[in-house]
Amino acid sequence: MIRMNSHYKKLKASYLFSDIAKRVSTFQENNPDTPIIRLGIGDVTHGLPEACIKALHDAVDEMAEDQSFKGYGPEQGYAFLREAIAKNDFQSRGCAIEADEVFVSDGAKCDTGNFQELFATDIRVAIPDPVYPVYLDTNIMAGRTGEFLDGRYQGIVYLDSTSENGFVPPVPEEAVDLIYLCYPNNPTGATASRAQLQEWVDYARKNKALILFDAAYEAFITDPEIPHSIYEIPGAREVAVEFRSFSKTAGFTGTRCAFTVVPKDCMIYDEKGEAHALHALWNRRHCTKFNGVAYPIQKAAAAVYSPEGQAQVKALITGYLENAAIIRSAMKELGFDCVGGDNSPYIWVNGKSDSWEFFDRLLKAGVVCTPGAGFGRCGEGFIRISAFNSKANVVEAMERIRKTLT
Amino acid sequence: MIRMNSHYKKLKASYLFSDIAKRVSTFQENNPDTPIIRLGIGDVTHGLPEACIKALHDAVDEMAEDQSFKGYGPEQGYAFLREAIAKNDFQSRGCAIEADEVFVSDGAKCDTGNFQELFATDIRVAIPDPVYPVYLDTNIMAGRTGEFLDGRYQGIVYLDSTSENGFVPPVPEEAVDLIYLCYPNNPTGATASRAQLQEWVDYARKNKALILFDAAYEAFITDPEIPHSIYEIPGAREVAVEFRSFSKTAGFTGTRCAFTVVPKDCMIYDEKGEAHALHALWNRRHCTKFNGVAYPIQKAAAAVYSPEGQAQVKALITGYLENAAIIRSAMKELGFDCVGGDNSPYIWVNGKSDSWEFFDRLLKAGVVCTPGAGFGRCGEGFIRISAFNSKANVVEAMERIRKTLT
Repeated sequence: MIRMNSHYKKLKASYLFSDIAKRVSTFQENNPDTPIIRLGIGDVTHGLPEACIKALHDAVDEMAEDQSFKGYGPEQGYAFLREAIAKNDFQSRGCAIEADEVFVSDGAKCDTGNFQELFATDIRVAIPDPVYPVYLDTNIMAGRTGEFLDGRYQGIVYLDSTSENGFVPPVPEEAVDLIYLCYPNNPTGATASRAQLQEWVDYARKNKALILFDAAYEAFITDPEIPHSIYEIPGAREVAVEFRSFSKTAGFTGTRCAFTVVPKDCMIYDEKGEAHALHALWNRRHCTKFNGVAYPIQKAAAAVYSPEGQAQVKALITGYLENAAIIRSAMKELGFDCVGGDNSPYIWVNGKSDSWEFFDRLLKAGVVCTPGAGFGRCGEGFIRISAFNSKANVVEAMERIRKTLT
Repeated sequence: MIRMNSHYKKLKASYLFSDIAKRVSTFQENNPDTPIIRLGIGDVTHGLPEACIKALHDAVDEMAEDQSFKGYGPEQGYAFLREAIAKNDFQSRGCAIEADEVFVSDGAKCDTGNFQELFATDIRVAIPDPVYPVYLDTNIMAGRTGEFLDGRYQGIVYLDSTSENGFVPPVPEEAVDLIYLCYPNNPTGATASRAQLQEWVDYARKNKALILFDAAYEAFITDPEIPHSIYEIPGAREVAVEFRSFSKTAGFTGTRCAFTVVPKDCMIYDEKGEAHALHALWNRRHCTKFNGVAYPIQKAAAAVYSPEGQAQVKALITGYLENAAIIRSAMKELGFDCVGGDNSPYIWVNGKSDSWEFFDRLLKAGVVCTPGAGFGRCGEGFIRISAFNSKANVVEAMERIRKTLT
């Protein structure tokens, strides 16, 4: 009899976005003349940079002719892209990352979800709260948690991100083996300072732990004091894997390209305590279960690093950050405590009330946000507002919120 | 301490293609004037169909403008593609497959590799020999095998595909829970008849087992008696998942699009013997760890089903099948028993000698094939020749082999 992975039974159905969709559709039926402004889901809204469009067209033309056609490429990505990433995203910031430590993939969701396969099932995992749900769900599927009790999974060390700690949790007092961190954070928009990240790296080195560092929103950092990469922190090459994506940087949410950096200095241990190179393990996993990213898409990603690409991406990001500033200052003016929005496209607003209740108040004004409770227990009382929309829509949304709340 | 998934230590390093590469490069150094003809790796060589190129360009233009830009799409694939697949690949052959049973992905390698995550680790798995290595490797990683002893993994039920059984193994006498089948087969090129597949479906229904049916080479079937889909077999909707790919059909090896069919009738059982819908489980996995295929690529895949696309794909396949016929008849003329090459791009040649020795004899003539032993113990003595090349190269390769072997 074909038996299931019973850990799947522990998963909570995620009703967050379907609940939102239902409430929005009910509102629209009752208010057909108020067009909704969506500042909920973290999806970009502007067209791809011109440099990427040109690269895509050129690569598609190459695919049309036998002479220039590309079949299977290297599973890890083409050298032209891996080299551009290593040089521009890391070496230019003084991070000693080599091209062959970069693994190109079709998404940070896949990579952050798949990476846990390399680990034993009985390690201790620390996961922030609130958090992007993929870290937790994939560890539940793998059997690294117990049951769901009192709103939390047994066996997980939750890292509470609260107003009190500035939404950057301190290292735990106990020893954990695997730590998920995400800065600039989704959903809070908070960033971690050099000193805070150094504490985490030191903790990981001391405990022979590994940090999975999700830097998908790195491009939104404007403050020169905030590190863009965990590899700006001394010692990180030994204890940290970094996930990056072109989704939010260059608007690739519907184009699909990302990458993961696995330094050759990272070690992982077998049951006898013998060290193995994490890089070799991930390479084996990647080559066995993945067949590379489409050639035209890799060419488009590489175009992000051209001078035109860099200028166009900067313009996109600047536009979204201007929206974020508008949202942040409007919400502050209305008396709400906010974090994020300065080095992040997300603004995490303390609504001083039930998340869903606050969501409903904004919806009445025709504005969709995301209730913080959907991201974890510590998200209760908050909402996430996303800057991914046109400036006109954002200005109009803030005007609507102002009217409804004052 | 971060501990590894120790099952990775059981994996054998795959030296097959790197060994081939080394021998080829040594030959080239010694014979700089003999250009190598590659009939080894199963990668297509012709440009993408014109209909796909046009669809790609059009979709890229859509991605350039805010108004037509596409961000995150449905993880399972756009309805336009799922509907085209259900209608053209299944309903047109009398298979009752609905669009929402089709999950679009970036490759059959990913899907065939990832699907085993849904199962308990202590189920009994049957895997053919010789075989595409992904089925076995991903089950090793998940801990469903013991150690490697006498050339085989403990705990796996190997399905020997030999000349004696026409390279279609009979159902095992014992009960197994999960069965991998691949027809037209990689590497042998053999096909399974309706009666043979019916036996497998009946076996699976009797044992509450599940068949993972890899039909990546379906497009090469010319014989009207051979089923294209497992769903042409009565009862298969209850016990079979089917993997398909645009890689070999439309030359998408470097473009990346595939799909998996999970009928809603397929059940899987928990430890109490309670039935759960496999469709819901795969949907949860797919949405948690995957973020959909790039919009332009899905448009290109959908173009395969347009009248022009169908004609262009047929021309590509016919060309490769003409090559296959040339190879098959040349090898038969030289006195070798062959299978495949009629409904498959692969010809499996009984070299009547050590696989690598035969490989070396062909390499001396400047032709690269794949030694059968690389696909499993039953592949010893065989080589796989691929029809993926230009007709001129295939004719020249056969001429060289003829000269060297006679």
